[in-house]
Amino acid sequence: MIKATIHVTLKPGILDPQGRAIRQSLDTLGFSAVRDVRVGKFLEIELQEDDPARADAHLKAMCEQLLANPVIESYRYELERHPSHPAAPS
Amino acid sequence: MIKATIHVTLKPGILDPQGRAIRQSLDTLGFSAVRDVRVGKFLEIELQEDDPARADAHLKAMCEQLLANPVIESYRYELERHPSHPAAPS
Repeated sequence: MIKATIHVTLKPGILDPQGRAIRQSLDTLGFSAVRDVRVGKFLEIELQEDDPARADAHLKAMCEQLLANPVIESYRYELERHPSHPAAPS
Repeated sequence: MIKATIHVTLKPGILDPQGRAIRQSLDTLGFSAVRDVRVGKFLEIELQEDDPARADAHLKAMCEQLLANPVIESYRYELERHPSHPAAPS
């Protein structure tokens, strides 16, 4: 089992209306020190796969085909191996 | 200037319909090794603040009041100090 954590963020220079709305809301709430807010996605995916190289290839394809819009978004991911049958906690 | 990176995720056990939809789409695309998908938010906030303790207090309040729904979501954040007037790249 491999667990992947993926960050999808807007590329620099791409307008972020959601971030702007949050910044305005924070300002209204009194958080006037906030200068900029950028919003992205964070995904955690569990893969039934033990080969890190294959998992890596799958992840790249998933990001390119579905999880990110490569025109306006960047992505990065980390893979972490988990035992398929975790030991009982001590 | 302090830069905060914030992760907001659904608490364990809370149904994640967006994650389920993504898992089904990935399955349709042929990624049958995917076992589970959980979707969260990732925010980057720039604060005009130099005191880490105050920035930390602000961040906690922002998360509790606006960025996360503490009933169903968890949050975590990291703070990173940036020079207010960054040096020119060498």
